Amino acid sequence: MTALEEFFTKIRNDVDKVLDELIPSAAAAPERLHQAIRWSVFSGGKRIRPALLFAAGRTFGAANGDLLRSAAAFEMIHTYSLIHDDLPAMDNDDLRRGKATCHRQFGEATAILAGDVLQTLAFKAIAEDRSLSAEVRLKLLSLLADASGTPFGMVAGQQLDLDAEGKATLMTDIKRIHRQKTGSLISAAAMAGAIIAGATNSELEVVERYAAQIGLLFQITDDLLDVTQLTTTLGKTAGKDAAANKATYPGIYGVEKTRVEANAIRKDALETLGLILKDTALLRDIGDMIFKRIR
Amino acid sequence: MTALEEFFTKIRNDVDKVLDELIPSAAAAPERLHQAIRWSVFSGGKRIRPALLFAAGRTFGAANGDLLRSAAAFEMIHTYSLIHDDLPAMDNDDLRRGKATCHRQFGEATAILAGDVLQTLAFKAIAEDRSLSAEVRLKLLSLLADASGTPFGMVAGQQLDLDAEGKATLMTDIKRIHRQKTGSLISAAAMAGAIIAGATNSELEVVERYAAQIGLLFQITDDLLDVTQLTTTLGKTAGKDAAANKATYPGIYGVEKTRVEANAIRKDALETLGLILKDTALLRDIGDMIFKRIR
Repeated sequence: MTALEEFFTKIRNDVDKVLDELIPSAAAAPERLHQAIRWSVFSGGKRIRPALLFAAGRTFGAANGDLLRSAAAFEMIHTYSLIHDDLPAMDNDDLRRGKATCHRQFGEATAILAGDVLQTLAFKAIAEDRSLSAEVRLKLLSLLADASGTPFGMVAGQQLDLDAEGKATLMTDIKRIHRQKTGSLISAAAMAGAIIAGATNSELEVVERYAAQIGLLFQITDDLLDVTQLTTTLGKTAGKDAAANKATYPGIYGVEKTRVEANAIRKDALETLGLILKDTALLRDIGDMIFKRIR
Repeated sequence: MTALEEFFTKIRNDVDKVLDELIPSAAAAPERLHQAIRWSVFSGGKRIRPALLFAAGRTFGAANGDLLRSAAAFEMIHTYSLIHDDLPAMDNDDLRRGKATCHRQFGEATAILAGDVLQTLAFKAIAEDRSLSAEVRLKLLSLLADASGTPFGMVAGQQLDLDAEGKATLMTDIKRIHRQKTGSLISAAAMAGAIIAGATNSELEVVERYAAQIGLLFQITDDLLDVTQLTTTLGKTAGKDAAANKATYPGIYGVEKTRVEANAIRKDALETLGLILKDTALLRDIGDMIFKRIR
């Protein structure tokens, strides 16, 4: 195992343990709701947001125990967005991470409620995190609400994406959609780690910039995989962006130019990282890992 | 106008003004999302939760300005639950407060996102409420998350309600569903007002008990109105509980015995109120108003 693989394995184990504590047992009433939540949360997600939160947190010297609940909260927000995104009225997807989507397994009504309450549990996890000061908790809650909300966060990005479907979309619009739909939560996860570690404002600015670049890179490589991979490899339905006439990089630039663009963003991200006067190997490795998905 | 009507008018005006500040403008992108949120938030709701929050807050001496954002937050959580409850996969309702439901007006996908982000805005409103200390904000966030979440809050109650549809339901089950689905948020709203006012723990216990009784009374009278009123009077589709074979008081007890039960709960609530050594006229009047809906 490489050092990065070891890091991811440890993060996954640690964060999953906290998630298991934060989410009511599948045996507790209403059982169906808790089973649905657990179905989606424990379905082999890559835990990219927790990993970035930990990487940024460690870079600036945070203790592991101070990062755990926030990492779990970001993963819960991410999972709620996937559950609602997959619904028939949204992307209408049957497959996620190689398994039936939440609504296929538990019905639409339960899937809506499971997503709703995962968001609630995420805010609760941070509000009640006794390892952090009251001020830090409030900062993180505010950050998470902005990153996942509207007008500049994830849900707003999903609405922009819906509005753009079937229309000719400009590259500036696609960039905004990507930045909000995926980038904002990824970027905020890294910021959260740095905030918990007590990074200075100028350090936070650099982290935000790096994480935004990584978030964009993640969405671009996701778009590329949707075009170039088979459903079996991807674990979710491939080719659906084009089928839905979604706004994507490959849709405008084509596959080859998108690869060039991804490489340029990766280079920018590495330059940004150079501005942090700490050991940034972990943050760099995560960026590399995301980039390598398309090779 | 009676004193209670004046109180409600003032609360509605004040809270609506804060809601208008907390929710992005309908002209801000993504416009459709913000229009959908505003469609549902500003649709003539009675603002019962804000009213109870203010009534409890004033009873224990809170300043109006300290109660406003929390009151708006409770109303946003309530509205998100109505938007999602009305969805085709849930109650499939076309009418709410005499207007088209959010998904009928803006489409299902936008309605899902509007509900999602109203929840986010609610937590953000409290996290960023500078009129309150950091400790009070965290207490309120925790209270709101428990009251609206799972296993003992609103979303869990909605799941229990779903699970009970079409089944023979025991009165103890109906009571739990009612307590969680409607009661928990109503009860928490009153608690929030008392917390902001700095009420003692023993005072909070009494407020919680009173508010739980009021919450149950509210749901029972709601069930009765569903049976006895026309759709035009009700502003939402009447008779749908029976049509959906929902677990209700009138469904088990019949209309007359349910009225008797409502009266008994009202008497209990008044007795509870007698334990608070303050001027509780406002809290009493709100309870009376809820009871009078069925006369």
